Amino acid sequence: MTTMFENTERGTEYVKRLTAFMDSHVYPAEAVYAQQMRESGNPNHHPQILEDLKAEAKSQGLWNLFHPHAEWGPGLTNLEYAHLAEITGRSPQLAPEATNCNAPDTGNMEVLTLFGTDEHKEKWLRPLLDGEIASAFAMTEPAVASSDATNIETSMVREGDEYVINGRKWWTSNALHENCKVMIVMGKTDPDAPTHRQQSMMVVPMDTPGVKVVRGLPVFGYQDREGHAEVLFDNVRVPTSALLAGEGDGFMISQARLGPGRIHHCMRVIGMAERALDLLIARAQQRVTFGKPIATRENIKDWIAESRMEIEMARLLTLKAAHLMDTVGNKQARMEIAAIKVVAPNVALKVIDRAIQIHGGGGVSDDFPLAEMWAHVRTLRLADGPDEVHKMTIARQELRRVDPEWGRKK
Amino acid sequence: MTTMFENTERGTEYVKRLTAFMDSHVYPAEAVYAQQMRESGNPNHHPQILEDLKAEAKSQGLWNLFHPHAEWGPGLTNLEYAHLAEITGRSPQLAPEATNCNAPDTGNMEVLTLFGTDEHKEKWLRPLLDGEIASAFAMTEPAVASSDATNIETSMVREGDEYVINGRKWWTSNALHENCKVMIVMGKTDPDAPTHRQQSMMVVPMDTPGVKVVRGLPVFGYQDREGHAEVLFDNVRVPTSALLAGEGDGFMISQARLGPGRIHHCMRVIGMAERALDLLIARAQQRVTFGKPIATRENIKDWIAESRMEIEMARLLTLKAAHLMDTVGNKQARMEIAAIKVVAPNVALKVIDRAIQIHGGGGVSDDFPLAEMWAHVRTLRLADGPDEVHKMTIARQELRRVDPEWGRKK
Amino acid sequence: MTTMFENTERGTEYVKRLTAFMDSHVYPAEAVYAQQMRESGNPNHHPQILEDLKAEAKSQGLWNLFHPHAEWGPGLTNLEYAHLAEITGRSPQLAPEATNCNAPDTGNMEVLTLFGTDEHKEKWLRPLLDGEIASAFAMTEPAVASSDATNIETSMVREGDEYVINGRKWWTSNALHENCKVMIVMGKTDPDAPTHRQQSMMVVPMDTPGVKVVRGLPVFGYQDREGHAEVLFDNVRVPTSALLAGEGDGFMISQARLGPGRIHHCMRVIGMAERALDLLIARAQQRVTFGKPIATRENIKDWIAESRMEIEMARLLTLKAAHLMDTVGNKQARMEIAAIKVVAPNVALKVIDRAIQIHGGGGVSDDFPLAEMWAHVRTLRLADGPDEVHKMTIARQELRRVDPEWGRKK
Amino acid sequence: MTTMFENTERGTEYVKRLTAFMDSHVYPAEAVYAQQMRESGNPNHHPQILEDLKAEAKSQGLWNLFHPHAEWGPGLTNLEYAHLAEITGRSPQLAPEATNCNAPDTGNMEVLTLFGTDEHKEKWLRPLLDGEIASAFAMTEPAVASSDATNIETSMVREGDEYVINGRKWWTSNALHENCKVMIVMGKTDPDAPTHRQQSMMVVPMDTPGVKVVRGLPVFGYQDREGHAEVLFDNVRVPTSALLAGEGDGFMISQARLGPGRIHHCMRVIGMAERALDLLIARAQQRVTFGKPIATRENIKDWIAESRMEIEMARLLTLKAAHLMDTVGNKQARMEIAAIKVVAPNVALKVIDRAIQIHGGGGVSDDFPLAEMWAHVRTLRLADGPDEVHKMTIARQELRRVDPEWGRKK
Repeated sequence: MTTMFENTERGTEYVKRLTAFMDSHVYPAEAVYAQQMRESGNPNHHPQILEDLKAEAKSQGLWNLFHPHAEWGPGLTNLEYAHLAEITGRSPQLAPEATNCNAPDTGNMEVLTLFGTDEHKEKWLRPLLDGEIASAFAMTEPAVASSDATNIETSMVREGDEYVINGRKWWTSNALHENCKVMIVMGKTDPDAPTHRQQSMMVVPMDTPGVKVVRGLPVFGYQDREGHAEVLFDNVRVPTSALLAGEGDGFMISQARLGPGRIHHCMRVIGMAERALDLLIARAQQRVTFGKPIATRENIKDWIAESRMEIEMARLLTLKAAHLMDTVGNKQARMEIAAIKVVAPNVALKVIDRAIQIHGGGGVSDDFPLAEMWAHVRTLRLADGPDEVHKMTIARQELRRVDPEWGRKK
Repeated sequence: MTTMFENTERGTEYVKRLTAFMDSHVYPAEAVYAQQMRESGNPNHHPQILEDLKAEAKSQGLWNLFHPHAEWGPGLTNLEYAHLAEITGRSPQLAPEATNCNAPDTGNMEVLTLFGTDEHKEKWLRPLLDGEIASAFAMTEPAVASSDATNIETSMVREGDEYVINGRKWWTSNALHENCKVMIVMGKTDPDAPTHRQQSMMVVPMDTPGVKVVRGLPVFGYQDREGHAEVLFDNVRVPTSALLAGEGDGFMISQARLGPGRIHHCMRVIGMAERALDLLIARAQQRVTFGKPIATRENIKDWIAESRMEIEMARLLTLKAAHLMDTVGNKQARMEIAAIKVVAPNVALKVIDRAIQIHGGGGVSDDFPLAEMWAHVRTLRLADGPDEVHKMTIARQELRRVDPEWGRKK
Repeated sequence: MTTMFENTERGTEYVKRLTAFMDSHVYPAEAVYAQQMRESGNPNHHPQILEDLKAEAKSQGLWNLFHPHAEWGPGLTNLEYAHLAEITGRSPQLAPEATNCNAPDTGNMEVLTLFGTDEHKEKWLRPLLDGEIASAFAMTEPAVASSDATNIETSMVREGDEYVINGRKWWTSNALHENCKVMIVMGKTDPDAPTHRQQSMMVVPMDTPGVKVVRGLPVFGYQDREGHAEVLFDNVRVPTSALLAGEGDGFMISQARLGPGRIHHCMRVIGMAERALDLLIARAQQRVTFGKPIATRENIKDWIAESRMEIEMARLLTLKAAHLMDTVGNKQARMEIAAIKVVAPNVALKVIDRAIQIHGGGGVSDDFPLAEMWAHVRTLRLADGPDEVHKMTIARQELRRVDPEWGRKK
Repeated sequence: MTTMFENTERGTEYVKRLTAFMDSHVYPAEAVYAQQMRESGNPNHHPQILEDLKAEAKSQGLWNLFHPHAEWGPGLTNLEYAHLAEITGRSPQLAPEATNCNAPDTGNMEVLTLFGTDEHKEKWLRPLLDGEIASAFAMTEPAVASSDATNIETSMVREGDEYVINGRKWWTSNALHENCKVMIVMGKTDPDAPTHRQQSMMVVPMDTPGVKVVRGLPVFGYQDREGHAEVLFDNVRVPTSALLAGEGDGFMISQARLGPGRIHHCMRVIGMAERALDLLIARAQQRVTFGKPIATRENIKDWIAESRMEIEMARLLTLKAAHLMDTVGNKQARMEIAAIKVVAPNVALKVIDRAIQIHGGGGVSDDFPLAEMWAHVRTLRLADGPDEVHKMTIARQELRRVDPEWGRKK
């Protein structure tokens, strides 16, 4: 199916190559992955199959696809990469990491590229780009509503050549990854500055004294391999060179990483929805109830048609957002970037839920990837701002757009 | 707001000119139109203001915008015209007819261009293109479910040099238009032919003996100006030259007119949704309840944001359908053409309904265009096939796409 | 189907008798009514068939069924009457008026019974109870949001033995009824009093000088027979004896009429939904598409099942509200009285819309009662407060109910 | 809040006592339970706190509340018990088992009471009623669609004085409970009998040779304490006395256990929804975003009001089903028993999902009971027949109810 108005030749070529890699290496690796994880008995185990896939992807040049700078990867546009992110989303536990396009590493790599010191680049960015280490991002806090970023309370107090960090974070993704070596941490350097200049971001090695990974948070019943950790910062001391950009730039940096990250997440989510729809349709054709295949029933056909329409529209909107970012910039794409964050997860949840329903008991268990996909996508209605906050962003813009006298004048 | 990935320079130019025409001529004419209609006391009255607008549009070169053939109009692509159809949809009772882009005249003009004889072109197509006459399209029948076109029962029996037509049609739009001079009629010439070769289409002048316009059908309580008529064909005799294309080509012709018509309808519907959203927002900013403007309430902001997202996605899908028709043809766009027919009216109904709710009692009356818009759009969930039939089309294609063994193999 | 936990013997007896009256007299009268209305050419015509039905209902003792006081009718409880209101709702243009149970006459009769002077009772209540005259209720105003009753601006200024009324009302139902002789009008007697003591209600004969019925408001194109009028009060003078209860009691009176009126409206709406469902099912069994009856398709069966479940739940909630009003009073039933006002119309709109969809073009025209029912029920999401206001009432009560510390303590 | 039209004095008394038990013992035990489970490191651990609660409940006479026969418990009606099931549902991991009202033990106890031999009663029913052992129910199979019970393939072949059972079951709930000693198993004794006479049910001790508990199935990542097991029957031999009722009675028995079980499940689900709503409201009052408590926002108030309305209606429908079962029997309550199975879980899922959304990251983790509740309730849209099957049951009944000629006659 044609998935956008146009893709470039280069983009189409990558789509073809990545699809071939999925067919020949990734899908067949899923069962191996499941077995290696099960055998390890450790939900945070880093299985060999992943390293094998990474090596293969690297050798095929399917590596760092996300990185916008040609120096570090193929240098694709947001629109070109968007199609690839969708494809990796079809096998969410393997494909993004296999191609070194995994969150939050991707966002961290972008931030280090743009705002890191030479030392940061040498010590952290380089091995991240090579897939040798993993990294975490610590922003959300348990004590305050994360939908309002200015609520953040973790303190970063300067003492001589050091900052002393105190606070409690949670949903620090990747912190339990076996390869995780470093974190980017958001905190407050100046509680008295203007609202959006109080925050700073710092690079904190995982083994810094005072950093304590308290626990991994389950998502529904899942302990994700990479982990969503609660992390305690107890008088953590870092040199002032840990600072990214300048003091007070934390909010600005978080905005900069935001746009592309949204596209990546949303397109992967659409990839999950597509896979769920494939599974739904295949199962509906296999299973027979009361004498005929489920797929012959008109209510199930309605589900299929509605899923197709909803996915298609969510994809077009996300591609438009990517295109706007490429051509007129994040600011002009504000409505679309807010909208896809609401639309894509909600559409995917609907499609996956229908697929679960068709799979019966198998659908809620781990015999199919559906229940775990659903749980993962459900968190995306909260991560990086709940739906409700993004809708307010859109409404604010619309209210500005329309003259209150419109109805009277025209 | 940017409404698509790209429009052409020519398309953008037309958007600008048509928008200016709307602002300077069409919106101000709405009150005049309402008054002229009211004063006439005749719901099927053809008011002078419409002729004035037609003259102005013609003089500005905003005429026959829909016509794909450069000989007859500007020769725009489906994608270029789609944006213009949206704009005319904002004032549905004036703008489409003012620019000679009104259904079913547009479809009839396309059919006559493609399949009409020289005589048809001289006698009917030319004055239609000049906006001198109007025309009707008679397909649906009261006695059978219109969702299945093969149900049609009107008989067209050849007797010598003539066909004798007998049957009863309804929802024959435009039949009560004061300028209506001719109909295109679908009927059965050969009940024994293969299912899709039984039907033929013929050109029937309104004043042919035996043609009886029985009544105008109300839509909810509205008697639309152009009329949706029940028409009785009682031994109506037409010469064999009335035939469009050949005997048995009726179904083929109806398919040919289908694609572009869908785009036109859906984009106009999106224009209506945009206007309803403008009215909603303006009103929400004006009205105060319990001490604050309605627009400050988060539930209303949710409505606004959801409306914006839904409209945006419906528009992108429709534009994609237009683009596919322009580039790979109707057949390759089958999914999209079916999908927009479901999506656009349903989205518009939701948005208009929210606008009605914000307008209180005014919303359901004729003090605002909302109730009439709603009633009109509601018919589009039925006209040209109910939602349910289009969903089955989409599901069928999806079922073909997915290998039933998918879930097992991958 | 059993429609509640229990009805009384008396209630069950009335159900039986009213059902028989519907079957033998009301349903057969519908076609006669349509013809008499059509022939009159006047949307506000009062046709003879209605008087015939009234005479018959009176002779059968099916008269003033709504009236809670045994002196004036059978003296049924709210719960007993609720079942009867549902039955009359199945033929909304005939049955309520035929049994003298039509709004707003019923509410007016209750108000006059409770708060009228002896003169009011003699002059207006008696002929209303006898079905000799009709009456209107003037509350909503075009200039202010009706969702907040304190917005009302019509002034009632005392001058000697008279009040002088100035203002503009709309949606004054029944004002165009040929028998309408009197209005109950809400206005402001003291703009400086506490918020809920500023309003008063007065009895105003329709022929009082200065009362001007400006126009009838259409509802989705329909001019309802009884009329929803815009009424201008231009220095209308009434004696001080026109006052119901005392000065400042307007809000209190409006609350008193509220509860029972809600039950009546909601149960009639449920009756409409039941009739729409009957029509839907019957049609789905008759019509054949693509070789099988629509009723054999699983998506249509889903609609039927969902309609049945939704109607059943809306009915139970309404009956519960009625029961609470009978046993613990309106105040204790506040949540339920607010909830049914939201639930019943929304459920009915869904069911009727599905029925319209099944009826195709016939569904939106006047060949079936569905389109007109839909338009009428749509107004009920606004009349007597929009959905949004009632939801706030419920939320307020819930917020009071739950201790903010709940989650921490238990 | 009054939750039904009327409860009996006896029922109201039990509501009071059970509520007190919840407040004084169950809610405070939740944290203890969580700690004991965590410390055990075993998801199927049976913690001491449960035995403590059971002892307390027994001593207070809050024991076997479900059992309709006065000999074995208080002998409450379905309607009386329904209110108690709702209350236990508020703490679903503790309260049902604490009061010996846990599924599938309850259904098994009813079946053994009605169809068990004296030996069954002595050996299994008595210790079950005393809470000394637990029991499982094995019906669903992985290889066939469970929505159609006649699909079951497990074979039960008579050989002399024994039956030999072969097959594979899954979702055998309670099979991993540490106290589980016995199963009731459904299988096919005669594949050639009429469709509903092929199945039989047998009593199979867990330690019978050939019974192999293959694995516990996760539910959205959760390994429930009692376990949903895949169980292999590999030439399992039981004496003919294992048969419940007669050969071929399996389907009949499954119907008999069905009705009351539905009420229990649905009322517990409503209890979960009520608790989720309490948590939602409490949290919305505590959390502040952008300067005001979430609970002051109108979109959140809409969620609260909608949750209240939806819960209320689902409860009334379930109570009506219980009442019908008490008064006119399961057969007459068929529509309602099918409807609540669809309505209650769907309503609860909506309410719990809203509560999760308000709780942010905490909502999807195990810091609140919401995610686990959601996962559990989601399985109920599948267990005991998917929604789709129950809707077909309702539609079938409606289609029978309405005369296809209705629309024409009336």
